[in-house]
Amino acid sequence: MKARVTVMLKDGVLDPQGEAVRHALGALGFEGVTGVRQGKVIELDLADGTSDPEAEVRAMCEKLLANTVIESYRVEIG
Amino acid sequence: MKARVTVMLKDGVLDPQGEAVRHALGALGFEGVTGVRQGKVIELDLADGTSDPEAEVRAMCEKLLANTVIESYRVEIG
Repeated sequence: MKARVTVMLKDGVLDPQGEAVRHALGALGFEGVTGVRQGKVIELDLADGTSDPEAEVRAMCEKLLANTVIESYRVEIG
Repeated sequence: MKARVTVMLKDGVLDPQGEAVRHALGALGFEGVTGVRQGKVIELDLADGTSDPEAEVRAMCEKLLANTVIESYRVEIG
């Protein structure tokens, strides 16, 4: 079973990595990019017997994958 | 207009960051995670007048956002 976790900085939290990408795109001639946010995506292979995979993956996010003070996460199963 | 780019290491390319996450999950008692791959997600705000946003974002990927030797990317618009 596959699960995908997307972790992004919360709105309002400064994203220097995204800002750097925005500047670099401008320098390369890509006009019209008004904002960039960069986050991470984690793809998990789960053993098939996992009961309630969504709850399991959410627990992983809370304990390890996301810093919930400044980051939000989204879980997709399947 | 929003665009989302997901960049992952290609299959077969060693992913030490993903491996580290897998080990850490095991140490935290999450059994049954058989594989982890970590990538990045880049959310772009594009000016509304952008013609052919998908081609534009693909050009950004080829030039800056992805290292196409070892990474693959996926573009979603809207």
